[in-house]
Amino acid sequence: MIDPLLLPELKQMLSENDTPGLKEFCDVLHSAAVAEILEELSDEEILHVLSYTNLPRQVEIFEYFPLSRQRDLIGRLESPRLVDLLEQMASDDRADLLESLEPEQLEAVLPQLAQADRNNIRRLMSYPDGTAGSIMTTDYASLPEDISVGEALTQLRLQAPDRETIYYVYVLDDDRRLLGFVSLRRLILAKLESPLANIMDRDVISVRADEDQEDAARTLARYDFIAMPVVDDQNRLVGIITHDDVFDVMQEEMTEDVLRMGAVGPMTENYLEASFLSIWRQRAMWLSCLFVAELFTFTALANYAGMIEQLVILSLMMPLCISTGGNSGSQAATLITRALALGQLTLGDWWRVLRHEVLMGLALGTTLGVIGFVRAAITPQYLLGSADRWLLAMVVSQSVAAIVLWGTLIGSLLPLLFKRLGIDPGIASSPFVATFVDVTGIIIYFNMARLYLL
Amino acid sequence: MIDPLLLPELKQMLSENDTPGLKEFCDVLHSAAVAEILEELSDEEILHVLSYTNLPRQVEIFEYFPLSRQRDLIGRLESPRLVDLLEQMASDDRADLLESLEPEQLEAVLPQLAQADRNNIRRLMSYPDGTAGSIMTTDYASLPEDISVGEALTQLRLQAPDRETIYYVYVLDDDRRLLGFVSLRRLILAKLESPLANIMDRDVISVRADEDQEDAARTLARYDFIAMPVVDDQNRLVGIITHDDVFDVMQEEMTEDVLRMGAVGPMTENYLEASFLSIWRQRAMWLSCLFVAELFTFTALANYAGMIEQLVILSLMMPLCISTGGNSGSQAATLITRALALGQLTLGDWWRVLRHEVLMGLALGTTLGVIGFVRAAITPQYLLGSADRWLLAMVVSQSVAAIVLWGTLIGSLLPLLFKRLGIDPGIASSPFVATFVDVTGIIIYFNMARLYLL
Repeated sequence: MIDPLLLPELKQMLSENDTPGLKEFCDVLHSAAVAEILEELSDEEILHVLSYTNLPRQVEIFEYFPLSRQRDLIGRLESPRLVDLLEQMASDDRADLLESLEPEQLEAVLPQLAQADRNNIRRLMSYPDGTAGSIMTTDYASLPEDISVGEALTQLRLQAPDRETIYYVYVLDDDRRLLGFVSLRRLILAKLESPLANIMDRDVISVRADEDQEDAARTLARYDFIAMPVVDDQNRLVGIITHDDVFDVMQEEMTEDVLRMGAVGPMTENYLEASFLSIWRQRAMWLSCLFVAELFTFTALANYAGMIEQLVILSLMMPLCISTGGNSGSQAATLITRALALGQLTLGDWWRVLRHEVLMGLALGTTLGVIGFVRAAITPQYLLGSADRWLLAMVVSQSVAAIVLWGTLIGSLLPLLFKRLGIDPGIASSPFVATFVDVTGIIIYFNMARLYLL
Repeated sequence: MIDPLLLPELKQMLSENDTPGLKEFCDVLHSAAVAEILEELSDEEILHVLSYTNLPRQVEIFEYFPLSRQRDLIGRLESPRLVDLLEQMASDDRADLLESLEPEQLEAVLPQLAQADRNNIRRLMSYPDGTAGSIMTTDYASLPEDISVGEALTQLRLQAPDRETIYYVYVLDDDRRLLGFVSLRRLILAKLESPLANIMDRDVISVRADEDQEDAARTLARYDFIAMPVVDDQNRLVGIITHDDVFDVMQEEMTEDVLRMGAVGPMTENYLEASFLSIWRQRAMWLSCLFVAELFTFTALANYAGMIEQLVILSLMMPLCISTGGNSGSQAATLITRALALGQLTLGDWWRVLRHEVLMGLALGTTLGVIGFVRAAITPQYLLGSADRWLLAMVVSQSVAAIVLWGTLIGSLLPLLFKRLGIDPGIASSPFVATFVDVTGIIIYFNMARLYLL
């Protein structure tokens, strides 16, 4: 995407102190691209290059650095440059940055800022992580109700420079209560002398600041909004969430889901940057839980030691038979969890799911049972011991079929049950289901063997 | 979110043929909300309710129905209403709808449309699924370079009603080649008499129509754009991708990743609506592949039948020892795949990953090894057979540790290797890795046992 020659060129300009070149570099490219290239330089070099451009542009570029880099950079800045930068930053990015500082660093920075900025920062930091309030910005454009379209456009021009978006404008009463909204598209299409109240839309879709950020993101995406108002419990506007926040929330949510499926659990740190100890703690916790659960396979198997002693072949076929239950369980759990997340399924559909998965489990079990039958039927004679070849094939195929059916049912119903109990259905994900089905698979397999072979 | 009383109210208005009420219902709420409530009605009722409002509003609401419902609805429409609807639809939504029709239905509809619309549809349908071209719309706003800001605003007002967005406007030369872009924010802040060429941004970030839709979505999200231009191989503007397309692409991509992790494989159908046979085929295919791979556990185990005959206790501890390798492998594979997807890791980091995961594998292996040691050490006497309690505990703990280390290494290096070979690293996901580690885990376990116990 970005020209790979830009970095060496930039380094050369730096070594030659090429003022016009460095200024052009900062000003011509998109600020995200500038940030991406600058990231390869040292903190000091970055601050040096940035000093060639004006403050609003510096801030734009700065906001595209990852949080950890932003933290390093402001650690090297002195006032007044530090204060200028912080005062110009978007309110949501600024609150995120300051929230990530050590308490003593924060206490050193805060008193240097103006009272209004300090209040804004404290308010934004007060919303718990994961709420709509924690991702909103207070840099929204707003208008009173009793003006004309022409006056509205004049006011908007004044507000535009430091607002995150002016494409959706919110109409407020004197107590900042949300009366309606109007898009810039509608404003520039309207007659200048029309009253704003006549063209604004009074059916405003908003979220409460204490709502879950995922719900807020989903609402915004569903209505294809560029921005959505965030209100307090008295319907007063406190901020807006913009479309780019939704990208971030979706990304975060996706990471969470995927990691949980892979037996990792939520992990917000960057893979290479996180501390070894914290990653170990996280991973060891999950693996240990699964390992302890898996200990029950031994408890279950202890009951069948006598059967294995008589027919060693039973233990040779065992991993094959039980692991397929785990796979079919993961498969069903994944499908159902995903369908729930996408809103294709609701709890009321449990009966349809059950019917569907019983049939599917039978169909899948039969398919795998046939493969298992063939494999068991061609077991070399020396491994069979006293077992009859065809009876062994019956045991393998029927227990595979039964275990697949069982795995499919557990995998599909557990997420529904969890959701019913108010637990995140994602918890009933692959490793959890697979371990559970492993243990029960042993019981099914050896009872099937007892039926045919003893 | 939506008032649950609205549906009964709507039904009552329908039964009473309450014209003003039905018109208000269609016009006041957000079109996405109207569509959601209407979905509960029959096709005929929907068409009846829609007829109470004007055509542009009908189209807005119609576009929020799921594709399958849109198809049912247009099946019931006759010209001229059908043609009016199709001609007013957003070009991307229209192409998606027509693409989903049966060939004969498409052939019945197409000739009724105007030549320009037919060409537009054919062109959009010609981009293969998964490309930027397949999700773009041709309803963009564009301007020539040699006009003033005032003239630009006048032209925009004319274009606005049928453009997907006018917040980003593209500046084209006579051959429709992309010269620059300007945001509506910048336009309304500029002086009316300034030349457009002076305020437009010439560093336009665009995607090629044949690029992957995921790459396009990621670029748009990275730069926080509301829309992004799509060009052909001669830099001529052919369409735009808007922020709401990105939500859809991210959702799709996420579903794909999650399903692959759950041994389902890509499945685009809705869970309850898809045909049983097509779901069975998909699920059976994956489970069979894993089952066939798992057959190798039998092949591996056959070599150790003699050992099990001597010491049945070995077979009782086996599932515990081998399954934990699968879990640690899934965990590592998930972390690495995710870190690759988020751009936290690149292939060049393979050496750091290897070092990190060797240490992590040792730390995790030691943790689980200790639990395994304790469990094996308290094995009841009657199950031990001729095995020494402490030697068994050594076998279990050391093979668990070795298998966890092995699983961690395989799980972390396989996604990197796949990426290096140009294969999607997601393929090296949980079920695949777990099955592979199961088989090798058997070999590690029995060789450890041979070392200590025979």
